[in-house]
This record gives sequence, structure tokens and C-alpha cells, in this order.
Amino acid sequence: MDMYDLILKKRGGGELDTEEIKFLVENYTQGLIPDYQMAAFCMAVYFQGMSQRETADMALAMASSGMQYDLSSISGTIIDKHSTGGVGDTTTLIVAPLVASCGVPVAKMSGRGLGHTGGTIDKLESIPGFTCELMPDQFIDQVNSIKIGIISQSATIAPADKLLYALRDVTATVDSIPLIASSIMSKKIAAGADGFVLDVKTGNGAFMREREQAVSLAKAMVSIGKEAGKPTVALITDMDQPLGYTIGNALEVKEAIQTLAGEGAWDLTELCLRIGAEMLVLAGHSARPEDAYQVLQEKLSSGAGLDKLRELITRQGGNPAVIDEPSLLPQAAYQTVIRSERSGYVKCIDALKAGRLVMQLGAGRQTKESSVDLSVGIELCQKVGSYVQQDDVLAVVHSNRPISGEYAAALDCFTISQAPPRHRPLIWQKITAEDV
Amino acid sequence: MDMYDLILKKRGGGELDTEEIKFLVENYTQGLIPDYQMAAFCMAVYFQGMSQRETADMALAMASSGMQYDLSSISGTIIDKHSTGGVGDTTTLIVAPLVASCGVPVAKMSGRGLGHTGGTIDKLESIPGFTCELMPDQFIDQVNSIKIGIISQSATIAPADKLLYALRDVTATVDSIPLIASSIMSKKIAAGADGFVLDVKTGNGAFMREREQAVSLAKAMVSIGKEAGKPTVALITDMDQPLGYTIGNALEVKEAIQTLAGEGAWDLTELCLRIGAEMLVLAGHSARPEDAYQVLQEKLSSGAGLDKLRELITRQGGNPAVIDEPSLLPQAAYQTVIRSERSGYVKCIDALKAGRLVMQLGAGRQTKESSVDLSVGIELCQKVGSYVQQDDVLAVVHSNRPISGEYAAALDCFTISQAPPRHRPLIWQKITAEDV
Repeated sequence: MDMYDLILKKRGGGELDTEEIKFLVENYTQGLIPDYQMAAFCMAVYFQGMSQRETADMALAMASSGMQYDLSSISGTIIDKHSTGGVGDTTTLIVAPLVASCGVPVAKMSGRGLGHTGGTIDKLESIPGFTCELMPDQFIDQVNSIKIGIISQSATIAPADKLLYALRDVTATVDSIPLIASSIMSKKIAAGADGFVLDVKTGNGAFMREREQAVSLAKAMVSIGKEAGKPTVALITDMDQPLGYTIGNALEVKEAIQTLAGEGAWDLTELCLRIGAEMLVLAGHSARPEDAYQVLQEKLSSGAGLDKLRELITRQGGNPAVIDEPSLLPQAAYQTVIRSERSGYVKCIDALKAGRLVMQLGAGRQTKESSVDLSVGIELCQKVGSYVQQDDVLAVVHSNRPISGEYAAALDCFTISQAPPRHRPLIWQKITAEDV
Repeated sequence: MDMYDLILKKRGGGELDTEEIKFLVENYTQGLIPDYQMAAFCMAVYFQGMSQRETADMALAMASSGMQYDLSSISGTIIDKHSTGGVGDTTTLIVAPLVASCGVPVAKMSGRGLGHTGGTIDKLESIPGFTCELMPDQFIDQVNSIKIGIISQSATIAPADKLLYALRDVTATVDSIPLIASSIMSKKIAAGADGFVLDVKTGNGAFMREREQAVSLAKAMVSIGKEAGKPTVALITDMDQPLGYTIGNALEVKEAIQTLAGEGAWDLTELCLRIGAEMLVLAGHSARPEDAYQVLQEKLSSGAGLDKLRELITRQGGNPAVIDEPSLLPQAAYQTVIRSERSGYVKCIDALKAGRLVMQLGAGRQTKESSVDLSVGIELCQKVGSYVQQDDVLAVVHSNRPISGEYAAALDCFTISQAPPRHRPLIWQKITAEDV
């Protein structure tokens, strides 16, 4: 088998067979296929695409390229949840305890944030003492004992994906649906869960700005799950305005606590219940999402979800007092109030601009090596559709230096209009194995 | 300027400006742009193409990347002739002396053969003593004195093209019209001629099998000549059967001598006169190709062309006695006669199969480093359209070992049918600056 022939085949729109995909991934990982050939191949994939079977083979081959977690010693079905990355997206911190409080194991491997989207590990580390660096055995014991554990994604997972992503990043071949789908799913599969609920975001704050693209990506990932024998469901969800009321690591932890206490923003709460419901169904806990939704709503009302979060924090070395005393979380030195310059309806809160602003404040990473300021961020005081008077507070910027240009930038996130905005659904659609 | 942005621009179908093309070529040649980025760019060009302006800029930038010949001290207008490579294509050895015999300077830089297509330098080296390794000054003096000189293409010409071609060769990005056109023309332009006559071959023995592709390539090259201010004309010529009667280095030299003596195959003679006529027009010697054709026909009849070849051989160290005594050329040890298995019309002589067979016999290079056997080849005794009886001689294989499998392969080059074949023109069309 020769890499040249595989490039030629793909260039002509052909379909590589399973052995050819394995050859490609294994030899590239071992350095036997040079970067220039793989770059030409990725560009050919950009133009010619990959079949569902090829995409699944790619994900499985990359998953097999490194360490694969074996979670079989955890009792129960483990359903992982993955978001394609959004602004102010703190769902994991809410969904995971809620699902675990139903007795369904949540063994979650999470990543750090990059660019304008946050990462669960960064958020959790804003809780004093909390660590995600657990040994695999310790992690499994913890999930068996309290039904929940969150660890930092191992560097040894899917090395083929790591190499390939770095190459795609410098050759303008990142935004190819089959390459994105196989990249995400290779890591998920290697992390060992039995099934997946995917939150594929669309809108200006998401990687997939167009809904059509988001649906294609969701279908590609659900199809990989199907081919891999791991039940997978995807929700296409809105990321045109930031989710909930806050953006920034410690601010989002505080918001997760409030949401688990039943005092969260409508959109964030609803999304968590819907994602959690799909997890409970895939785990075999409930027959229908509607039933599971009810169960989760009760866990929210009863405070069982919040208790589970407290248990998680305690077990992973964090200070559980943050639950009742959020001021124990890192706090920024400056709070700057952003006021509306006119009266009208909030027509749009630009999630991308908001995410970038928070990154500039120091909450996000420009590169993988950057460190993050856990205390900074934005608190939104309005959501899209609200009517505001001139001088009403739109947002509060939390920073560690006085802001000036950032004030204008924060104000620029809001568009105020005289007519109420067109309604956008929170959840656009659901993709299941039957749709692919 | 950043290579990533240039890849992205081309991937999206955008047009790079002149500065961007220069940046690309200069930085790649200096090793500042890595192969993997250039490979992704070439694959994007494969799918998105390049405008005429981009293609010309590419050719000019690559021509400027190394040594550029200055032929201004040669008196007269120098028109170069280039063939895109065929089987049994010995036109240069006939056209060059004919044109020079009209007093028009021919300062030709030629290459060696690769794959199933031959190269002029290899052919000339089958003449005992002949050398193409001249110093530039010596070459210019010779052309000024006898109007003809043929040298081996310098290794220092268009290094950017050399690097890029080597990369394209291993990344399945060779067959892109703008990349092929700019590659050919970069070397031609650097070689210093004032204008070009291009013989773009089409048919199964040519690189451009489809006529449509050949026309596109011809247009791209003529357009580069136009942009570079060097008058260029292309003929789209047939390469579905080998040109003339022989394939193989020494055999083709013998055939060139016979053709210059007025005893050549119809197709080879006609093509040489037509190419030569275009050269005489571009050089300002004749007003119309028809007039030039007449002049060249007279040079053929009078033996002036053959005399010029003799002068060339003598001047470049070869033994001119080969002209009257072709047996002084390298001769193969074995001559195997291939006979027709049935009676009928010669419907097809597969140029690609014939070219490959001759390469297998040792006449061609598998890689650039291979050495060639100058004596081996095939002599065809029939052309397409001839009627043959069973057991009539179709061809004679010249080899240096007894042949067995090659016998069947040689026979397989011929298709005999009961109906006469459909006529294919020798010259399909002419492309001038007005067509692009």
C-alpha cells in the first residue's frame, strides 16, 4: 500500500477501505508518512469529503493510536456528554451532578479551553483545592463509590489526532466535517464511555456558525458512534447569544451552583435538563426523554444535584464551602457596569464578541501554553428579547485592571432595536442513529 | 504575508496577487515555507485552478528563482521549440537543422527522457563523441557561427520548479494544468529564448490523453508567453500512435537522418515542417506559415537540413560519418520480427504500450538516476490505416537479450480490425495569443 495512491484515490473522489485508513493513520503516527503527503490528503478530503464508513474508520484508527481507557469495572452504562464548544457553556458542571444523582455513573474526561470557548477543567480549577489530575484506578473507584468523577484528558489519548490536528491547523484543513467529526470522536471513543450525547452548537459563538454545517457535523459524529457500536444522540443547540448569564471560569462555577439550586437562567437550565434526559435514556435509566426530564427536574428541585456537586468537590480535594459561600471563588479586583445608551429590545448579544472580550481579559488561552485568569469575565444582566430603558445595566465586566477600550467592546456585544427580535429556538433539532 | 492565508484564499477559489505568488515561490525556494504547507496549497490549486495571470506570475517567479540565460549576444530572434513529450518523437533533431539552414538561429536547451517519453539529449548522445555539455560562451559562439547549438538543460535553471515538481510528484498534484504550464514555461523562459512554438501532444501516448486537457494546457502556456512578452504559438498534435517509424534513441537518430534526406515517415515529416514553419514566422523570417512551409520543404529536398545536422554533429564533437553510415550508431544484439496473427487493417498502434515496452527494454529511465541503453527500441513496419496480411511483419524489436514476454507485449501494441480505422488528424488545432 502506498500513500501516493491513497491521495490520488481521495483526490478523485474515491472511498478508502478500512485497511487503507488504518495504514494511513498508523504510518502517519509512526512518522512513516511525511507531513507533506498527509497535508495533500487532508486538502483532498476538504474538497471530496469522506463517506460515513471512512469517517468512522478514521475515528476508530485514531482512537487506537494511543492509550484507550477501560471503564468496564465501573458498574452501569457510562454515557459521556460532549459540547463542540460555546461561550458561557457551563452545562457539564450542572448535567454531570444531576445525572449522577439519579444513580447513573458519570465518568467524565474533560479538556481545557482554547480560543474564545471555555473548558470544564479550567472552570473546576477555580474551586480552591479542586484537582482533576486523578490516577485511572482512583477515578474508577470514585465513580463506583459516588457515581461521579471528572478527570483531565490524558496527553496519551489519540496521539494520531494530536499530530493530525497540529498539521491541519497550519495547512487550512481544519474545517472539514469528516476530519472534525473523526477528531472529536477519536478522543471520546478512547476515553472509554459506552455511548455519547453530543451538544453541537450553532450560531455566531460556535465553531459551526451555520446550522446546516452543525447538522452535518452532528450526523457525522452520530454515524461514527453507530459504526463503533456506541449509541449516540446529538442536539443542535443555539449559540447565537452566550448561554446563561455569565462568561468566565469562576463566574460560571458560581452560575452552575445557582442553577443547581434552581435559580439559573432559563436557557442554561433547560439545555442541561434536555442533555441530561438524553443521557438517562441512553444509559437505560428511563424509557423516554420526557420521563427522564421529569426525573431530572425533581433532582433540581430537591437539591439532590447540588448535593452531588458538593460530594464531587469534596472528593476531588476542593473546598465544598464554595457552594454556600461563592465569594470563596477567585474574585476580580474591578467590576465595571455597562449601561444601555438607548431604550429598546435587546435584539442580539454577540456570543463571539463576548467570548473574545473575556479572552482578552485573561480568561481564555490564546495558545495551548497560555495560563488563564480564573476570576475575570462578564456577567450579563439581560438576555435577548428583554426590554431595557436607557441607562439600564446591560452587563458587569469583572477584570483585574481598570478597563477602557474593553468598555466599548462590552457595549458593542449588545444590539438594541425598537422591534422585538425574531425568536430563535434553544434546541434546533435532535439527530439520532435513525437520521444517518 | 502568511502562507496559511494564501492556502485559505486558494482553497476558497480566490486569486493570489503578483506579490503573493512571488512570496510563495521565493519563500518556498529558500525553505521558509515548509513542504506540508506547499503540498496543501498545490492540492487546493488542483481543485480551484489558477487564473491566467496567476499562472503567468507563477512561471515568471519560478524562472527568476535561479540562473537566467542571456542570449542577447546571439544575432537574430531566437524561437525555442518544446514538446510536451511523446513516443518516437524525434522532431527536434529534424526541425532544428531545417530552421537553422534558413539562417534563423536555433539555440536549444534540451532535457533527458523520463518514463515512456524520450529526451533529445539521450538521442544525441547515441552519436559517437557527441556532447551537449557546452559552456554558455561556447554555446553562444557556436550559434552565432553555424546558427545551431543544442545544450543540456542546466541544473541551475528554475530551482523553484525543481523543488515544487519533486513535491508534486509525491503528493498527487502533478496533473494540474496551471502547475504543469507554469513548470514548463518557467524553464523555457529562464533558458532565454524570445518566443516559443509548443507541440502539445494528445492521445494515449501523451501526458494529456484528452484533447480538451491538451487545449487547456496549450492555452495556459500561450497565455504565459503573452504575459511574459514572448510570442508563443501551440500546435495540438496527435500522439495516439508513435510518431514516425521508430522508438529508441539510436533508432530515432537514424530516422531523423532519413527524414532530413527526404525519406521519412509522412507524419514525422509533416509535423516537423509545420512546427518549423511556426518558428520561422515567429522569428520574423516569413510572413505566413504557408510561405515558411514551402521554404522548409525546399531545405529538405535540397539536403540543406541534413548538411546542417552534419555541421552540428561535427561542431559538438560527434562523428559526422553516422550520416552516411548509420551502422556506426549503437546497434542492439538481437532483432526480433513481430508478425501479424491475422489479416486486416491496423486500427491502432498503442503509443503508451509501445513507449513502455521500449522503456522495459532499457531505452528509458524509470527514475532520474537510471542509465539508458541507447541501442534498443522498436522499429514499426506499419502505420495506422495500413492493410496487412497474416504473417506480415508489424515491427522489429531491437534488444540486447533474447525477448519472450516482450514479444507478446510488442504484438499487443497493434490492434488489427476488419474495417479501416477512423481518421485522426495529425494536427488537431493551433492556439495563438488571440485564443487566450
